[in-house]
Amino acid sequence: MEKPYVLGLDMGGTNSVLGAVDARGHVLARTSIKTQAYADINDYVEALYQEAVKIMDSLGGIELFRGIGAGVPNGNYYTGYIQDAMNLPWQTVPFAQLVSDRFGIPCKITNDANAAAMGEMTYGVARGMKNFIMITLGTGVGSGIVIDGKVVYGHDGFAGELGHTCAVRGELARPCNCGKVGCLEAYASATGVARTAKEIISSSTKETLLRSINIDAITSKDVYDAAEKGDEVAKEIFDFTGTILGQSLADFVAFSAPEAIVLFGGLTKSGHWIKDPVEKAMNENVLPLWRNKVKVLFSDLKEADAAVLGASALAWE
Amino acid sequence: MEKPYVLGLDMGGTNSVLGAVDARGHVLARTSIKTQAYADINDYVEALYQEAVKIMDSLGGIELFRGIGAGVPNGNYYTGYIQDAMNLPWQTVPFAQLVSDRFGIPCKITNDANAAAMGEMTYGVARGMKNFIMITLGTGVGSGIVIDGKVVYGHDGFAGELGHTCAVRGELARPCNCGKVGCLEAYASATGVARTAKEIISSSTKETLLRSINIDAITSKDVYDAAEKGDEVAKEIFDFTGTILGQSLADFVAFSAPEAIVLFGGLTKSGHWIKDPVEKAMNENVLPLWRNKVKVLFSDLKEADAAVLGASALAWE
Repeated sequence: MEKPYVLGLDMGGTNSVLGAVDARGHVLARTSIKTQAYADINDYVEALYQEAVKIMDSLGGIELFRGIGAGVPNGNYYTGYIQDAMNLPWQTVPFAQLVSDRFGIPCKITNDANAAAMGEMTYGVARGMKNFIMITLGTGVGSGIVIDGKVVYGHDGFAGELGHTCAVRGELARPCNCGKVGCLEAYASATGVARTAKEIISSSTKETLLRSINIDAITSKDVYDAAEKGDEVAKEIFDFTGTILGQSLADFVAFSAPEAIVLFGGLTKSGHWIKDPVEKAMNENVLPLWRNKVKVLFSDLKEADAAVLGASALAWE
Repeated sequence: MEKPYVLGLDMGGTNSVLGAVDARGHVLARTSIKTQAYADINDYVEALYQEAVKIMDSLGGIELFRGIGAGVPNGNYYTGYIQDAMNLPWQTVPFAQLVSDRFGIPCKITNDANAAAMGEMTYGVARGMKNFIMITLGTGVGSGIVIDGKVVYGHDGFAGELGHTCAVRGELARPCNCGKVGCLEAYASATGVARTAKEIISSSTKETLLRSINIDAITSKDVYDAAEKGDEVAKEIFDFTGTILGQSLADFVAFSAPEAIVLFGGLTKSGHWIKDPVEKAMNENVLPLWRNKVKVLFSDLKEADAAVLGASALAWE
């Protein structure tokens, strides 16, 4: 019998969420452990295994599981290593090998944005697509690029760092956490939007509902709520952000000519307020042959499941 | 017996050059016809065939030829069509089909930059590489992207238009021939360099050997000659051009994490004068993980052969 299940692991800096997934993308069982509670990677893997056994047994045992896919910080698909992960207790470890040795089933790893792309291709809005680009808009901006049905890893396994392509050049460009300036991440991440809100609000005296919120704690949700009530400053924040993101997407289109760009994360909850300026800027900045031809799609995977689903998709390969 | 030869066709707006090539990349025989002399595509294909027969017969006959690869304007690898080629008499025709029907051997087509990438991978400095990006610096700026040993064609066959990614944004950005502004092509093409020379020379009163040349006809060769003589303005022109090109290359690296960037065309004849600022800007603008790790290589294929070799490489696939 074909093994019907896979495990998906979403390793975050705080929690590691493990789920059992079927071929349709249903998360049938889930559990989690605290990532930081294990100073030794072998203790972490052992704790993970003990939890995994419980959910695998609830579904009929490990014999029904094809493998485990993991989305991990700085995960290298080629080598199976976690490399130089500053926010993890272990930094550099042969994670895939350790897991497959302990579990007795194959383990593949990648970073979270590539896992998200796998998830969209396997279970989400990119099902059936062979060429698309996934952009994750969260604390940072990540990306996973799919060409000919495969995630692009490049020469070293680290391809697809589109959050750190240059969106704005020159003296006005913002510094990015990576040490460079003007990166897309500095504009389209959650902190990027908060910074834009702060700049736009404090640079004018226009009336806005957003002045009632602590200017250092504005989120894209706050901006969305204000836009829904007709707030012009809120719309300006989305236009600014969407224009920069759309301009960058236009350059990504010139690279791999994707069928679609799939967006995931906080900003997408703002719906048309962000989608409209993104599409407008993208179409204004692509060559005529791509104008109004490349779809911009928002992920429709449940946010609570998306990371586990994405990771699990690796195990079907 | 394995067929030892292929044909390579380099179709330009003026001349169509056809060569017979062996597996080592030697062009053993060549011929050409005038592209514009045939208003009917069938007449063009027939003329091509008659010429081809001569060089094939000189090498032992068509039985020894595996196929024909063609680099053609707006050539679509997937469909075999030339599409909307404004500089050709036929604009849109099923070229690969017409050629393989008449010749009786398989024909594959692509555009010239993708053909160049195939040529470098098959016979040139990218031999053995599975991940690299080819940038052709000529009248325009073209590109061919190789990932996992294959040229990237994307959803529609037109991937790899890196000459039309945005190198400079904002009000100072130059218009590009494509109708957009700030494209890499507007800075790193032959006309881009000429324009940079004109701008830099006319915006200062600095002494320069370049003032003795008609300011509207300066080439990168002129700038090179001046730089070799210690001309500071010439060096400034290369620094400006190389910095913009290097910044763009940094973003391309973030996309596909290539082992190398291969440059071909006019600008590369300026050697270290252009290579140094390109490498400097690229390394300053990539994430730390790629700093000083991605090679910048100049093509070493003979310019007269490169286009035919590149096209011919398609026929070995």
